[in-house]
Amino acid sequence: MKLGAIEAGGTKFVCAVGNDQGEILGKVVIPTEAPSITMPKVYEFFKSKGIERMGIGSFGPIDLNENGGSYGTIQKTPKIDWVDFPLADEIKKHLNVPVIVDTDVNVAALSESRWGNATDVDTCLYITVGTGIGAGAVVNGATVKGLSHPEMGHIGVRRHKEDSFEGKCPYHKDCLEGMAAGPAIEARWGKAGVELADDPQVWDMEAYYLAQGLVNYIYVLSPERIIMGGGVMQQEQLFGRIREYVIEMLNGYVSSPRLTADNIDEYIVPPGLTNEAGVKGALGLAMD
Amino acid sequence: MKLGAIEAGGTKFVCAVGNDQGEILGKVVIPTEAPSITMPKVYEFFKSKGIERMGIGSFGPIDLNENGGSYGTIQKTPKIDWVDFPLADEIKKHLNVPVIVDTDVNVAALSESRWGNATDVDTCLYITVGTGIGAGAVVNGATVKGLSHPEMGHIGVRRHKEDSFEGKCPYHKDCLEGMAAGPAIEARWGKAGVELADDPQVWDMEAYYLAQGLVNYIYVLSPERIIMGGGVMQQEQLFGRIREYVIEMLNGYVSSPRLTADNIDEYIVPPGLTNEAGVKGALGLAMD
Repeated sequence: MKLGAIEAGGTKFVCAVGNDQGEILGKVVIPTEAPSITMPKVYEFFKSKGIERMGIGSFGPIDLNENGGSYGTIQKTPKIDWVDFPLADEIKKHLNVPVIVDTDVNVAALSESRWGNATDVDTCLYITVGTGIGAGAVVNGATVKGLSHPEMGHIGVRRHKEDSFEGKCPYHKDCLEGMAAGPAIEARWGKAGVELADDPQVWDMEAYYLAQGLVNYIYVLSPERIIMGGGVMQQEQLFGRIREYVIEMLNGYVSSPRLTADNIDEYIVPPGLTNEAGVKGALGLAMD
Repeated sequence: MKLGAIEAGGTKFVCAVGNDQGEILGKVVIPTEAPSITMPKVYEFFKSKGIERMGIGSFGPIDLNENGGSYGTIQKTPKIDWVDFPLADEIKKHLNVPVIVDTDVNVAALSESRWGNATDVDTCLYITVGTGIGAGAVVNGATVKGLSHPEMGHIGVRRHKEDSFEGKCPYHKDCLEGMAAGPAIEARWGKAGVELADDPQVWDMEAYYLAQGLVNYIYVLSPERIIMGGGVMQQEQLFGRIREYVIEMLNGYVSSPRLTADNIDEYIVPPGLTNEAGVKGALGLAMD
């Protein structure tokens, strides 16, 4: 069976045809412009490829409520042209296939659980730290959603005692994203993260905030592995400090061999998939 | 098919025989003493009842890792006699049936989703606020577990600006449980919660902490309904204030008709089940 997959991102749409063994048979990259420009190219690529289902991992927020009337519709986003665009419905109409939609980060979690760094466990969490902070998770064999999709980047954190930065989230000021996403680093220190690579204070504070996020995710979701990706996590020195803070903050409360100093390097890890993570995860959605 | 169900609590074991339609056919209540006293009475009740599977909702912490060697074994708990007691294995040995174990709060969430106040949604969270704070959730058709079981009561919260109480959690001091469980209320104000019923300041502060917990759970799990039970929630004036704080703290970020001032009374609700919630949920485990 041939399946369609789209990684719908803020800068590009990666479109692929795959099969039900999870193999990518062909793909194309289309820049994300207005829907009226981008979407006809998407339809054109898939037309006459004989796909039977379509999976999409999309930027958001996006409506994932299957019982409502606007499943797969983009919600309020800074990308004005896409606000209220019924992504799933339009694809269904043009290609005449069932469409399954999820968030980009849920799809990344699914992808890591099938083909990446979480194939040996049943539950995992994927977090990306970049211009924003988003996370997705696989629990009980599928991604986590309900009322809406998770917005894990917006949980509350406690301020580092040496930090007077007010926070950059337009909704909450000093939530995790407001304190630790790339733009917060730049606003706090006056330079982009890449230019601060050698300043340990920057990355200690960053790790302090991200570790608070992970600890809360552990308390709520109890994932068997946490995968950290995104631009900010390219600062690889972060991993060690985050792991130390997580152990320190848990303070021995959660009893698991995975959460010990000996094993935490295999608990909090970078992604196993790189280029094709998003589009393979979207294919995974179509396979289910 | 006849099924066994146990609500294994800190003060009593509620043992029931039910059927695969979720009906309780007979039950008995056995006080929780040492395992050597309590367990023979449990075996005696179930013996010759012809049950084919057993579901247990247990106090914890308890090992839920099906791939490890100690599934269903009680872990470190203040109930010294029960530490390291292999609850599932012992029942399996004495009654010769498969045993499915989960936490008391996960089982309560399952029970509410099948027979209580969350039958109309796919995902729900159940939180109990009493001598401790614990929560369980149903996501993708089953309860949430992984590395271990959730310990949602221990997430970090921000201090109320008028609160100087240091917190009562032995592991984290001022986590949610440390600031808002029954013993924290008593330690902060010098009287038990029931004696403070008429002091609005007490319940405003309590609601402030609990709402922070709920908001973080919403960001991480996106439940379609939140059910709040336990002794502290008997102070019914808490519900209104918690709902207000949740809307205020979300600040419009999660777009859902359930999270509006008009509908939040049906989003954050008391339990629908009372007496038999735990044991019915345990029966639900055995039915799966």
